Amino acid sequence: MASTHILSAYDDELKYLSRRISEMGGLAEQMCSDAVRALVNSDAALAQKVISDDVILDHAEREIGDKAIITIARRQPVAADLREIVGSLRIASDLERVGDLGKNTAKRVIAVQGTGVPRKLARGLEHLSDLALVQLKDVLDVYSTRSAEKAEAIRSRDEEIDAMYTSLFRELLTYMMEDPRNITTCTHLLFCAKNIERIGDHATNIAETIYYMTTGAQPEGDRPKDDSSNTLGAITE
Amino acid sequence: MASTHILSAYDDELKYLSRRISEMGGLAEQMCSDAVRALVNSDAALAQKVISDDVILDHAEREIGDKAIITIARRQPVAADLREIVGSLRIASDLERVGDLGKNTAKRVIAVQGTGVPRKLARGLEHLSDLALVQLKDVLDVYSTRSAEKAEAIRSRDEEIDAMYTSLFRELLTYMMEDPRNITTCTHLLFCAKNIERIGDHATNIAETIYYMTTGAQPEGDRPKDDSSNTLGAITE
Repeated sequence: MASTHILSAYDDELKYLSRRISEMGGLAEQMCSDAVRALVNSDAALAQKVISDDVILDHAEREIGDKAIITIARRQPVAADLREIVGSLRIASDLERVGDLGKNTAKRVIAVQGTGVPRKLARGLEHLSDLALVQLKDVLDVYSTRSAEKAEAIRSRDEEIDAMYTSLFRELLTYMMEDPRNITTCTHLLFCAKNIERIGDHATNIAETIYYMTTGAQPEGDRPKDDSSNTLGAITE
Repeated sequence: MASTHILSAYDDELKYLSRRISEMGGLAEQMCSDAVRALVNSDAALAQKVISDDVILDHAEREIGDKAIITIARRQPVAADLREIVGSLRIASDLERVGDLGKNTAKRVIAVQGTGVPRKLARGLEHLSDLALVQLKDVLDVYSTRSAEKAEAIRSRDEEIDAMYTSLFRELLTYMMEDPRNITTCTHLLFCAKNIERIGDHATNIAETIYYMTTGAQPEGDRPKDDSSNTLGAITE
């Protein structure tokens, strides 16, 4: 009876970690979505909300870290349970960084407010953001099912985001070349695009962590390239 | 006798993790230094070396992760020892990302090779890189002494890097505005500068982890602001 009680308390601790991770994921997603909306609508109040929300996410990561350590020390888990807890630490760290990217984008809203974001570029950013956020949402869904197979499938989808980022990168360079008055705004938009592209990288990291939690192994084969715009100097010259 | 033997083997495992972290740190430092040198000298061969070195760093992070999990499962550490091992995981993750930043800078060497890097900008990048690498080197030294006090002192030094990054950011914008032919190169250099500035952020993360490993607490007070160039739209307008 006592041992059932201990096991169930342990199970509750693992479930608690898992629920907190899902909550972090939901908030990180919302922040990134709000940040892009704030950017394309020059909505300073929404940008400010994103910046404030980041504190909640930082706090959640610390709390998950503390809880994970306490659980390891108290339950001395091995094998799958230990991987589950260490995986939680990694995922919490990736989600905290996703929140930072949302915050960084939100901070740039004020910098580009004077000129606004040209309609075509706004659509490009929204499209890139939609793709990255679907990737993040899907990986969080896979997290709740712990499917190694699905985790591996998501990992291979990052290439689409990279391709769209590359196209947006080119377009931003073109705007800058056409009119030097676009340079300041477009530079900030370049960093925003890069922030969004990096959300996809973090979703890929999370997919790899889920694979590891479930199987104890790293997924095979290289992950998709992380930054194809690096060679664009040759293309846009 | 048997228990001394076990304790000494355990100690060896902790020391092994610690030594591998220091090795990762040395390589990450070297990669970032080489990347900037490759950039300002248009040295494609050196850039290629940095890109290849990143594989070693990725491999080291995985190995440290596997070893840490095995050590936790086998030794079931609590308190300071557990924090030591979990801290190793975090630091390895930060160092792996520092290596990624070096690699990303190295990849841009080819993109800017056509035009080369103007002398004044090259000096700015070198200076920023020197500062960030001193920060990284110092935090790795603190890691080997595990001094919470020194870790806290390093954490407050990130502001200097941010200020220099902001100044370089402005200068790059000016170059782009002066001549649209500079835009492609300067955009890549902007990302390089951002990469270097982020090395400082990772050094700060590592300082916080060392503080946590040593004391079991998070350092008090806000960390320095992470990106003051975000509001520069207003200044360069």
